[in-house]
Amino acid sequence: MNTKNPDSRPEKNMISRRPFPGSEKAYLPGKLYPIQVPMRKINLVDTVKIENGKPVHTPNPPVYVYDTSGAYSDPNAEIDLHKGLKDIRSSWIERRGDAVALDGLTSEYGRMRLQDKSLDHLRFEHARKPYRAKEGRQLTQMYYAKQGIITEEMEYVAIRENQNAQACGIQTSITPEFVRSEIAAGRAIIPANINHLECEPMIIGRNFLTKINTNIGNSATSSSIEEEVEKAVWSCRWGGDTLMDLSTGANIHETREWIIRNCPVPVGTVPIYQALEKVDGKAENLTWELFRDTLIEQCEQGVDYFTIHAGLLLEHIPLAKKRLTGIVSRGGSIMARWCQYHNQENFIYTHFDEICRIVAQYDTGLSLGDGLRPGSIHDANDAAQFGELETIGKLAQRAWEYNVQVLIEGPGHVPMHKIKENMDKQLKDCKEAPFYTLGPIVTDIAPGYDHITSAIGAALIGWYGTAMLCYVTPKEHLGLPDKEDVRVGIISYKIAAHAADLAKRHPGAELRDEAMSKARYEFRWKDQFNLALDPDRAFEYFHDREGANADGSKFCTMCGPNFCAMRISQDLGKEHCTDQYAPSSR
Amino acid sequence: MNTKNPDSRPEKNMISRRPFPGSEKAYLPGKLYPIQVPMRKINLVDTVKIENGKPVHTPNPPVYVYDTSGAYSDPNAEIDLHKGLKDIRSSWIERRGDAVALDGLTSEYGRMRLQDKSLDHLRFEHARKPYRAKEGRQLTQMYYAKQGIITEEMEYVAIRENQNAQACGIQTSITPEFVRSEIAAGRAIIPANINHLECEPMIIGRNFLTKINTNIGNSATSSSIEEEVEKAVWSCRWGGDTLMDLSTGANIHETREWIIRNCPVPVGTVPIYQALEKVDGKAENLTWELFRDTLIEQCEQGVDYFTIHAGLLLEHIPLAKKRLTGIVSRGGSIMARWCQYHNQENFIYTHFDEICRIVAQYDTGLSLGDGLRPGSIHDANDAAQFGELETIGKLAQRAWEYNVQVLIEGPGHVPMHKIKENMDKQLKDCKEAPFYTLGPIVTDIAPGYDHITSAIGAALIGWYGTAMLCYVTPKEHLGLPDKEDVRVGIISYKIAAHAADLAKRHPGAELRDEAMSKARYEFRWKDQFNLALDPDRAFEYFHDREGANADGSKFCTMCGPNFCAMRISQDLGKEHCTDQYAPSSR
Repeated sequence: MNTKNPDSRPEKNMISRRPFPGSEKAYLPGKLYPIQVPMRKINLVDTVKIENGKPVHTPNPPVYVYDTSGAYSDPNAEIDLHKGLKDIRSSWIERRGDAVALDGLTSEYGRMRLQDKSLDHLRFEHARKPYRAKEGRQLTQMYYAKQGIITEEMEYVAIRENQNAQACGIQTSITPEFVRSEIAAGRAIIPANINHLECEPMIIGRNFLTKINTNIGNSATSSSIEEEVEKAVWSCRWGGDTLMDLSTGANIHETREWIIRNCPVPVGTVPIYQALEKVDGKAENLTWELFRDTLIEQCEQGVDYFTIHAGLLLEHIPLAKKRLTGIVSRGGSIMARWCQYHNQENFIYTHFDEICRIVAQYDTGLSLGDGLRPGSIHDANDAAQFGELETIGKLAQRAWEYNVQVLIEGPGHVPMHKIKENMDKQLKDCKEAPFYTLGPIVTDIAPGYDHITSAIGAALIGWYGTAMLCYVTPKEHLGLPDKEDVRVGIISYKIAAHAADLAKRHPGAELRDEAMSKARYEFRWKDQFNLALDPDRAFEYFHDREGANADGSKFCTMCGPNFCAMRISQDLGKEHCTDQYAPSSR
Repeated sequence: MNTKNPDSRPEKNMISRRPFPGSEKAYLPGKLYPIQVPMRKINLVDTVKIENGKPVHTPNPPVYVYDTSGAYSDPNAEIDLHKGLKDIRSSWIERRGDAVALDGLTSEYGRMRLQDKSLDHLRFEHARKPYRAKEGRQLTQMYYAKQGIITEEMEYVAIRENQNAQACGIQTSITPEFVRSEIAAGRAIIPANINHLECEPMIIGRNFLTKINTNIGNSATSSSIEEEVEKAVWSCRWGGDTLMDLSTGANIHETREWIIRNCPVPVGTVPIYQALEKVDGKAENLTWELFRDTLIEQCEQGVDYFTIHAGLLLEHIPLAKKRLTGIVSRGGSIMARWCQYHNQENFIYTHFDEICRIVAQYDTGLSLGDGLRPGSIHDANDAAQFGELETIGKLAQRAWEYNVQVLIEGPGHVPMHKIKENMDKQLKDCKEAPFYTLGPIVTDIAPGYDHITSAIGAALIGWYGTAMLCYVTPKEHLGLPDKEDVRVGIISYKIAAHAADLAKRHPGAELRDEAMSKARYEFRWKDQFNLALDPDRAFEYFHDREGANADGSKFCTMCGPNFCAMRISQDLGKEHCTDQYAPSSR
């Protein structure tokens, strides 16, 4: 990084957009609405057995998998970062008739940036007029759900969640009506700001596929707009379901515009970070008015959910001082400093109703941040953490009164035997609002490998019912992740999320495992790579192996020809298959 | 690899033996016996607070951690691979008086190899005369334990398990007498062949620290003796508690001698692999006599435990044919092929009593292999797997009648919700004999990342009570691991094992986490690296970070100065500490 000029627009075509190997983009149509839901269709080769000396082919059906990569992996899609992704949602919003396109930006800061000619050279040129709810109208997904209305977004996510089943014409329990009922109950959310028209809707809730969030963002001295957009697209490519832009550096407003306009997944932020930049890093100079303007600024850009640390109260601060590692949440420490300096209650807490009224106008969701999450195994499940969680639970119910969609954020650092208590208490205190956890990391002693320490905790808490897992990269606690770290962090979390889905017995979750294992048993190597969460890495490791036998590799390389259990096992059954793959052919 | 001549001795000093950073080797003395138990003592810097404008130093006590690296990490130790590690156990064995040094090798194959002049150039020159039990005498650790005798090995492991507590003079529940009672009950084993005199004793049992095993070994076309010895030492360096030599290539006998003579941890093998090489890979040509000779050959070299697939019976084979992925254990598939070809019962099963009589003479442990472990999520916990486990449970009890120490091997591929059933059934069927599992891998869809899919399962099953976890590297299912893969596989499994120890509330397990977290909160970066499971990787990631601030880094690099939660949190408490570390100083 740092090799590009940080103050420049991205190149139009600099983005990662190679299609996935052996795959094609499939679009499944809606029944209620004229929607097209993207899937990745992985095509498999035939199983070939030799019977009476002749090869007999049996086709293997294609496997449809959930696809977060957006139009970038579609070779037929036209991509121009300067124009942004295709608008897929404005016709839905217009049809519902509850929104109005404003003449210009509402926030003071947004208008100021727009008028600043010195920023022209790095501005996204095709920004739209923002939508907002019409006076006296409501338009959040939760509002519609409570009215019994199934929206386009709801049908979209229902199709998406069904993966293979939908493609095969099988009806599972995940129907548009089920989606509606889960959203109405607050058990799930579709983060979909009416100003993020490029967003492919997705759902977060424990009765759906477990999702993962990734974090990107520049900090004071690092990375350009181009790099941040590429990181966003890269994150979607590998499977990030949502993306948080945690930028704290220069040109946050403009960078965010570029990211949202080019991002096919919901974008979240922590608005207090930008607010703090506006007061030059002095937490005590933060004000409600400044924060309020920042919320509106970001709502009108299309941020799909905000992390706000509304549950951290003055009374919790003494509890945190007893800890081994104090407060480790950035937002939490900022608010604690503000509260203590002014000896006043947290302004995000005291203005919570007004915040709900603002975000409801755009359907920006609230992710109630755990400013007091434990930063060490030692501090897990303590009075500070659980005190804040109880406060958050009450706030979630207040948000629902405004039909604002809510996520609840969770830890952090928690040893395995204390994880379930987190989930149980969250479900109880927060009335089943979706839980969104950072890991948790299950031991503190492995910096450099915290994607693994935390994937263990994430898999467990996902199984117990957490709806979304915030990824951790190998650089956690040590530095900022580069692209390779982002990829490794995402795959680690796709593993955790999928392991959780298998353990929860999510309908159809096992189909990809079974297709993989069948390919493995039949030595269909190419299918194994293509079905893998990271096809490129699997292929690379296979190809780099010692003594690679170019004749078709009808044995596992770990064992050599005499020791391949699967080959011997096949021979036991008198079955024989010819291999479809020679390593040099790819 | 493959760059060295596979038919040559290793260089005398080619081995990885750099001491651990910030650490020294400490040897704790026994009370019952004149033994010296090695530990790694991690020295920490002082905590420095500014009070009234002056720095006030508070020392942080050193942290003693379990150390598998042997003399290699001791700068004062003389290392000569051609002589092997120091003999630490012959005086113990001589004192007990139950063994006799033989005039020569018992096995036919061993004698043949010794007489083959063409092997002289690659032979280990300082091989000793083998020990064996005197006629009518017994000498296994289990025998002594049942007699109420505490051996040197038992006191050694008791000190070792206590880590910090022992160094601080605190007595925990893990005493030499407790060790003895666990071994007598079959709940734990000390794999310590009387011919592995270089071995630093260690214990495997669920009431002790969770252990990890690593696999090395050459295959038909790869790697030299030098590389295998280096891989063994490398494995110990990063934390491998035991080492399996799974060689299937050339010069297995000679390679094994080099490995054992230079290996400070117990060495296990799968004797059927070498037996199969002796019949040129034709499973049907295996015989009991050949297998028997192989067992004796390896017992006299000092192999500490044998994996034998004694529980796979003719009646199980039809069950395995119903599976998605058949038989995936190499040993299992070999024995299944033999049984089916001859339509006879598994000769390892029918000669089990004789095997026990042989291995008891050397105190080689038996690791009862799960030839029918599932090779896919789909096949987990099926009739084939559990049928074999029931057979194994009965064999374990037969072995105990001969005072043979026993491990039970377990899966494999198991989704999270089916893991606990494995542990519960193993404890019941095998009367609490220590469980030793391969992972389990919790999803099949992530080749290239199976160290992670399996670390999730390993952490869980370790928490539930598995005593030893067999590591999986990133190359699993794709190729042979190189040194970097071995390191990553080991650290992943140290994480799983330690997470399990924390969750089991093993006495003192949390001390290292707390020392790490305190160092983190106080910005003692150097201590964080030194306390990490992989100090080199942690340092490398920190050092490579963008915008590294060479002034002492009093903030986390993820956040920048305005956003460091820990710094803000410290300021809340009016505490200040100066940093002890500038990145360029190392």
